[in-house]
Amino acid sequence: MFFASDNSGPVHPKIMQRVIEANSGYAMPYGNDDIMEDVRTNIRALFEAPEAAVYLVATGTAANSLALACYTQPWQTIFCAQHSHIEEDECNAPEFYAGGAKLTLIPTGDKMSPEGLSAAIAHRTGGSVHVAQPGPVSITQITEFGGVHTLEELRALTAVAKASDLPVHLDGARFANAIAALGCTPAEMTWKSGVDVVSFGGTKNGCMGVEAVIFFDPTKAWEFELRRKRGAHLFSKHRYLSAQMAAYLTDDLWLEMAQSANAASARLAAGLRANGAQMLHNPDANMIFARFPRAVHQKLQAAGAKYYVLDGDVATGDADELLAARLVCDWSMTDELVDQFLSHF
Amino acid sequence: MFFASDNSGPVHPKIMQRVIEANSGYAMPYGNDDIMEDVRTNIRALFEAPEAAVYLVATGTAANSLALACYTQPWQTIFCAQHSHIEEDECNAPEFYAGGAKLTLIPTGDKMSPEGLSAAIAHRTGGSVHVAQPGPVSITQITEFGGVHTLEELRALTAVAKASDLPVHLDGARFANAIAALGCTPAEMTWKSGVDVVSFGGTKNGCMGVEAVIFFDPTKAWEFELRRKRGAHLFSKHRYLSAQMAAYLTDDLWLEMAQSANAASARLAAGLRANGAQMLHNPDANMIFARFPRAVHQKLQAAGAKYYVLDGDVATGDADELLAARLVCDWSMTDELVDQFLSHF
Amino acid sequence: MFFASDNSGPVHPKIMQRVIEANSGYAMPYGNDDIMEDVRTNIRALFEAPEAAVYLVATGTAANSLALACYTQPWQTIFCAQHSHIEEDECNAPEFYAGGAKLTLIPTGDKMSPEGLSAAIAHRTGGSVHVAQPGPVSITQITEFGGVHTLEELRALTAVAKASDLPVHLDGARFANAIAALGCTPAEMTWKSGVDVVSFGGTKNGCMGVEAVIFFDPTKAWEFELRRKRGAHLFSKHRYLSAQMAAYLTDDLWLEMAQSANAASARLAAGLRANGAQMLHNPDANMIFARFPRAVHQKLQAAGAKYYVLDGDVATGDADELLAARLVCDWSMTDELVDQFLSHF
Amino acid sequence: MFFASDNSGPVHPKIMQRVIEANSGYAMPYGNDDIMEDVRTNIRALFEAPEAAVYLVATGTAANSLALACYTQPWQTIFCAQHSHIEEDECNAPEFYAGGAKLTLIPTGDKMSPEGLSAAIAHRTGGSVHVAQPGPVSITQITEFGGVHTLEELRALTAVAKASDLPVHLDGARFANAIAALGCTPAEMTWKSGVDVVSFGGTKNGCMGVEAVIFFDPTKAWEFELRRKRGAHLFSKHRYLSAQMAAYLTDDLWLEMAQSANAASARLAAGLRANGAQMLHNPDANMIFARFPRAVHQKLQAAGAKYYVLDGDVATGDADELLAARLVCDWSMTDELVDQFLSHF
Repeated sequence: MFFASDNSGPVHPKIMQRVIEANSGYAMPYGNDDIMEDVRTNIRALFEAPEAAVYLVATGTAANSLALACYTQPWQTIFCAQHSHIEEDECNAPEFYAGGAKLTLIPTGDKMSPEGLSAAIAHRTGGSVHVAQPGPVSITQITEFGGVHTLEELRALTAVAKASDLPVHLDGARFANAIAALGCTPAEMTWKSGVDVVSFGGTKNGCMGVEAVIFFDPTKAWEFELRRKRGAHLFSKHRYLSAQMAAYLTDDLWLEMAQSANAASARLAAGLRANGAQMLHNPDANMIFARFPRAVHQKLQAAGAKYYVLDGDVATGDADELLAARLVCDWSMTDELVDQFLSHF
Repeated sequence: MFFASDNSGPVHPKIMQRVIEANSGYAMPYGNDDIMEDVRTNIRALFEAPEAAVYLVATGTAANSLALACYTQPWQTIFCAQHSHIEEDECNAPEFYAGGAKLTLIPTGDKMSPEGLSAAIAHRTGGSVHVAQPGPVSITQITEFGGVHTLEELRALTAVAKASDLPVHLDGARFANAIAALGCTPAEMTWKSGVDVVSFGGTKNGCMGVEAVIFFDPTKAWEFELRRKRGAHLFSKHRYLSAQMAAYLTDDLWLEMAQSANAASARLAAGLRANGAQMLHNPDANMIFARFPRAVHQKLQAAGAKYYVLDGDVATGDADELLAARLVCDWSMTDELVDQFLSHF
Repeated sequence: MFFASDNSGPVHPKIMQRVIEANSGYAMPYGNDDIMEDVRTNIRALFEAPEAAVYLVATGTAANSLALACYTQPWQTIFCAQHSHIEEDECNAPEFYAGGAKLTLIPTGDKMSPEGLSAAIAHRTGGSVHVAQPGPVSITQITEFGGVHTLEELRALTAVAKASDLPVHLDGARFANAIAALGCTPAEMTWKSGVDVVSFGGTKNGCMGVEAVIFFDPTKAWEFELRRKRGAHLFSKHRYLSAQMAAYLTDDLWLEMAQSANAASARLAAGLRANGAQMLHNPDANMIFARFPRAVHQKLQAAGAKYYVLDGDVATGDADELLAARLVCDWSMTDELVDQFLSHF
Repeated sequence: MFFASDNSGPVHPKIMQRVIEANSGYAMPYGNDDIMEDVRTNIRALFEAPEAAVYLVATGTAANSLALACYTQPWQTIFCAQHSHIEEDECNAPEFYAGGAKLTLIPTGDKMSPEGLSAAIAHRTGGSVHVAQPGPVSITQITEFGGVHTLEELRALTAVAKASDLPVHLDGARFANAIAALGCTPAEMTWKSGVDVVSFGGTKNGCMGVEAVIFFDPTKAWEFELRRKRGAHLFSKHRYLSAQMAAYLTDDLWLEMAQSANAASARLAAGLRANGAQMLHNPDANMIFARFPRAVHQKLQAAGAKYYVLDGDVATGDADELLAARLVCDWSMTDELVDQFLSHF
């Protein structure tokens, strides 16, 4: 019963199989392997972006930091949600890669609001040399609270960015889960909604460690390649990244796994609600924040369930006190495990 | 006939097998997986360093840059060979990770000389605030020209560093090939010879993409962890790095593969010499620099041989003109392929 | 009637005179001039800190950024008030000098609260490698809103820092104005209250361009010297910085000028209040934020008064609408000019 | 008898006078003062560059580092002479400001050779992502060895740069001395010879601390302004920088002082030669490198002469042994002092 994160489950067998198949003979290093050719073609097709520049890296933080760095000058600020991954979970990697640029945090409830974004941009605008200059807007889809921006919400945010001529980055560590939730196309959720660069995450969705960075403006290609190498993120034996992504793209495996994760999460959310748990945020995709009694936490932990408790001490205190949990389902989560989890309520 | 590099061959089947075995159930992320526990224990045993801090990253450039950064202040200079990997092949990654520190190049023939190193350190010494301050000495073993420092040579260099209280980094992208050549122990080639931090390379020697960074001074551990995360080099699904390294360490597979590569290289070097090729450097391990006639290059290329030609144009010119080649053997190189290559002379 | 800032008035004649006197013969460069010897001695005496390391730079941003950098690792965060100079007016200089560290903003009313600081530190604490690690706390005295922390308030903040073993920086661009307001000693407002490093500002208080950076822990000395040089802030003809500071220290000129500025500000504040203006913050020293009718603004501007209007358009709108102004007095402000300003109400 | 450097003499009285005159009333801060308007106009006229972007900073290292940063990406390398100021005397400031870019050193005798420059550029060229990419060429005029590139030599170097589309920076810390030596115009020695950005040094030539940075391509203006602020090099009381430069430009004071310094140096060089001293380099302007016997050094030091001895110990050793000295004359050097120096031979 592992609900701690979607970064700890196994690699999908089809992906592992493709890696094994790639392990034959010699291959050109550093992204010049034949499999990468196919990956590039297939991603361009999937995103309906025949000119896009497509690259692979192995971690989500690398994808975010390198993509943002291509759009950020060191004297600028990146605008992001207060509780975004780039702010809270990347140990200053975005600042490092952007040469000491600043992150400006948009106060958020579940999602960044266009008004909050607009106010933050206005505060940095005016042409004075003294202030951090406005830089890119980074949106996370799905958010750190498990929310999915609708296309309308997404476009409202990118419209604010575009009104100030600012580029837009989409942190898509859980891109597939968002698509599965919205039922739209990758193009609709990216360039058709004003996104300039997106990380198309694989690691949290059944891959071993691979993220695609996709620039809809291909003039950023060479800069990205240099930044990736300088950041030590260019793999010599690149074919093993390519192979993961190749399998991920084949027969929409990426979407199938996300749908599976979202379905497990929905089953879990329904069960939690039925058992009286309080939802802290809307569980739009594969991540749930819910509050339930300490007594239940204690039973779950005794049964070996793994997940984050966000506040308080499970071991000691009033049995009825409500403690918040974060519960995440990945592609490999089964109905049986969900039901087993719920059986402790 | 792929002699271009040791970064393009397949992963050893035992390593792939271990990765497959690791792909079961849930595992703690970010280096807290059980396999890493074993890796740490086994590397400490192999290096006879029970206190060493041991970490994994996926690229050689990351290993070098992060290790050096832990020993370099931004106002210092790293001392290295003129034709070292960190100077010529890492696109300023060492400077990036070390916050803008400088590399001071020691003019080298085949290897860095203690005299050259000493003079370079002296030039930066004296307490003036104007000059780049002396920082770590980085030694590459095997060198970019295929040479292996003997233990005596290594100790002569580290003695120069220690005389100025400077730490020593060993770039061991081809560590195993050096051990295979010298027949000494890892401890003898590292901390017993004055090395403070070493990258124990796996990628060029049959792994998919993994390098161990080993600090003999464990007080650097937490700084390295933070630098690794900030550099976006901490893997969530870390078990797949651990698994590679676990197999690499089992039954001295790392040494067996290096011995195989070195033996292929020796067979090739002997054949080249027998055919009148000139050696530019001593091929001490698995890398050969040799000069032979254009006509032979043309035959080799026509036969599909892959390797770097370092000067001139193979296609056009005097058939007898000697052109230099770099030829590298990895673990998978066979006697048959070597002989096939030599048959074109 | 120049109330726009205290950075635009003339240099005090005694300071200019000392600069002129310094302009004779040869002097050792780079801070080795004889005048600097005296400055160091006198600052140590003034701060009752015989071991302190004392340096001069020419801008307040340099003083802040270099001082903070000596206490900040690139993977850490500096804690500061939401509306601090280092956050809003230094164009990412602190981040630049600290190698890409982050600023964490403490929501503030007039001043940073110990509770707010404590919560912000707690949010970054816990030993996870993923989050920006806690770094120094930076306090501005007087604040950007013109407030002066009492010694009790100051100590409450530094106590929070010390409880987490965090160093404390005091941005003293208007240090003298705070001392004039509190009537305490420099030692009481710094190391006796838990401050580790302070910038003792001269530029805004009658100097040409000089700030002293004072480390109460002298082990930071050499690092600061290297950072200052690397930042291009070490002056060859340093004697002209020394001369300014020497005159500033003589016969407590620094305090006399601050008292003069504060007195002018107090006269102005009293007059504003008498005329019905609303104070946005307590004008504790030489800076006033006040709201008064557009009609008055129009009269003042017509009369040539210079100051910042913080909201709205002076030229157009309801004559009775209240618009906020920032009004700053420097040492050279006279009663006549203040009264002239007030005469337009 | 101060021949140690041209950074330690007094400020020319006319410059001090102008600073005093500037000290009246209020002035707009941050470079918006009226005097700067005149400075900009006069520099554009002097350089025959009506569109040039003109800025002031207070140190030569700031001028070099900020100017170069505007033309350097962090993954590039700056090409410069092996013994240039930016390599040997700026404690990694150029690397810091350029985000971790590398300096590639051109082996030099007295001056950088076009062949050496060309070879160095070629070594970094070829489109590989692994190597530091070619960036700007930085030329020092006059060189650290006191040489002055003729216009022909300068153009030969910039032609190499332009052939690879690389921008050219001129470190003109002693710009005036070079003009005095060549008898050409500032335009001829800069943009008419292929220079894109120049630092027009004042500090070493009779100013207190001011350098102009002049971009012949004005599109770099805003980036420079942001980099200057972020580097903490924007002065609030900027008028005192402006005043120095204004006086420096008036009636060609800059040239008059340089001519005076060069003349003193020529008198000294002639005397040294007449006394049998060996010249290490051609003393083209105001800097001499000469070798003469220890006994003479001892007499000079006893008489209080100040200068750098580059090798060996003056106090102990063979009286006849030749030791090298660096001797620099500034604008204030007199015939009497030169003759007094020579009298010890």
